[in-house]
Amino acid sequence: MRVGVIGATGAVGKELVDVLARRRFPVTQLSLFASARSAGTTQKTPFGDVTIEEFSMERARKLDLALLAVSGDFAKAHARALAAEGVAVVDNSSALRLEADVPLVVPEVNGHAIGAHRLIANPNCTTAILVVALEPLRQAFGLKRVIVSTYQAASGAGAEGMVELERETRRVLVEGQPAQAEVFAHPLAFNVIPHIDTFQANGYTREEMKVAWESRKIMGMPELLISCTAVRIPTMRVHAEAVTIETERPVTPEAARAVLAKAPGVRLMDDVGAKLYPMPLTATGADDVEAGRIRANDVFGNCGLDLFLCGDQLLKGAALNAVQIAEQMKLPVPA
Amino acid sequence: MRVGVIGATGAVGKELVDVLARRRFPVTQLSLFASARSAGTTQKTPFGDVTIEEFSMERARKLDLALLAVSGDFAKAHARALAAEGVAVVDNSSALRLEADVPLVVPEVNGHAIGAHRLIANPNCTTAILVVALEPLRQAFGLKRVIVSTYQAASGAGAEGMVELERETRRVLVEGQPAQAEVFAHPLAFNVIPHIDTFQANGYTREEMKVAWESRKIMGMPELLISCTAVRIPTMRVHAEAVTIETERPVTPEAARAVLAKAPGVRLMDDVGAKLYPMPLTATGADDVEAGRIRANDVFGNCGLDLFLCGDQLLKGAALNAVQIAEQMKLPVPA
Repeated sequence: MRVGVIGATGAVGKELVDVLARRRFPVTQLSLFASARSAGTTQKTPFGDVTIEEFSMERARKLDLALLAVSGDFAKAHARALAAEGVAVVDNSSALRLEADVPLVVPEVNGHAIGAHRLIANPNCTTAILVVALEPLRQAFGLKRVIVSTYQAASGAGAEGMVELERETRRVLVEGQPAQAEVFAHPLAFNVIPHIDTFQANGYTREEMKVAWESRKIMGMPELLISCTAVRIPTMRVHAEAVTIETERPVTPEAARAVLAKAPGVRLMDDVGAKLYPMPLTATGADDVEAGRIRANDVFGNCGLDLFLCGDQLLKGAALNAVQIAEQMKLPVPA
Repeated sequence: MRVGVIGATGAVGKELVDVLARRRFPVTQLSLFASARSAGTTQKTPFGDVTIEEFSMERARKLDLALLAVSGDFAKAHARALAAEGVAVVDNSSALRLEADVPLVVPEVNGHAIGAHRLIANPNCTTAILVVALEPLRQAFGLKRVIVSTYQAASGAGAEGMVELERETRRVLVEGQPAQAEVFAHPLAFNVIPHIDTFQANGYTREEMKVAWESRKIMGMPELLISCTAVRIPTMRVHAEAVTIETERPVTPEAARAVLAKAPGVRLMDDVGAKLYPMPLTATGADDVEAGRIRANDVFGNCGLDLFLCGDQLLKGAALNAVQIAEQMKLPVPA
């Protein structure tokens, strides 16, 4: 199958190539597209050395599958056109996620929504990590209210975010100088920034609203009461999430654990006596979302549950979920 | 006034000396007590060089005020005895906080509880920072439910915590080696650890339960529905808290802002257009608790409010609050 990764030099683009190889996706020809600046350079991949090309519709329309890890503007300009040419498209941007005719998919939750669609949107990283754990709990106990506080890594802002955090942490520790900021709104080294993406009129950031909007669409619960506080912290990879839910029916930690232990895409990490709980340290590079710290939250009587999640936002939050979607798409037979 | 700081070489002990000087507390003689290991060494202070002594009741009973920044075991052994000798005692440990005859005080909230008591408990750092902002909101709108997720700095584990985070961050960045852990349950550099203090039978940590138990006592709301997830993150100073509340009466962000703008001990930092919100970067070394990101949370209809807090846990969360308590105590007239 002729597969193209668009935005191949970014943090998600690189993960996409690795995930395709690791999951033995039937790639017969891999094309890598990036900006004109990178075009002509060669990238080593598990599929051999690939020369990076500048994107053109003429080239891209020959693909069977296009994985888009670029901006929303790019997706708005090209995603529908590519799909119309018969290319299966998975778009990682936020541009089309809420469009009525574009399914927004986390395969463990709503893989059925893929159907015969040729253009599928890949959700926001925080959302994908959240709903993998919420959906099995919803099926078992119902879901009334969701309150989430996030602990999001620098790589959520791409490779540049990681580079900036590393450089500025060195500046503080090695040079003894104050940290600077270009990628982030403020210096991130040894700091916490409750500001990801732009602010909306209601005081929430777009990142926070994406968690609400997208969770509702993916879970098919347009009226779900859900609120998020999205916070950038000085970690490199993996988003952590402190989640409080009110269920429709009574829930116990034991019952919730039993449900999550069987849930696809979830790894139960919940043995506090052994100091076992989700952490970026253990979730980095892992496909499954770690779930733990499960306990009864009596703020909601016998319908309250707290849990803590960690998911690699470059994998389940991005590249892995995109490839999982592609695996379930009815891909065109090559000409 | 003869003032003694017990545990003078720790992170909180050092802050206590600084805060006494900065607030021009009427110290006539400063005594510093620490373990036998440090005894005999000299510490530079704003009150002159002071030779550190090993603690003895014989020495300590001559104090007018004893500020305890040591373990709960020490407080259990000596705090009541010191108070019985006529020494005013402020204890920073958790040992006596829930004792019925020991007021637990955040002066902005329940300074009236001090009365003629000679022994006052200083609350948990996360709690002190929280209730300074919660109490004015409670007075204005009532308080039904509180859900808190914390972002706690290494210094919450004392000076050793800061040393470990700095050393291990260097190990990762400069030596390219994995981080190690002695003070923390796991390596903290570039990680997140949802585990502070020991685990309880209900799955919550003691740190999380302290926030519930102590907030209820300080605010005089024994039935308050409150739940906390306490998380250690790789910052040096300042605890941040994402707080969701359900009020008894309708609340708006505008009304909440007006209340917090006038609240003692709170600094309103809430102008998202100017990228102004609470952060460790700005709250480090500040007396006031920063409050911002105030917004309506419709998970609780028109009674829902979200806010974000940052407080220097060595100041409002410890040393500053202790000195504020001492300022309001009826101190014995020196013999």
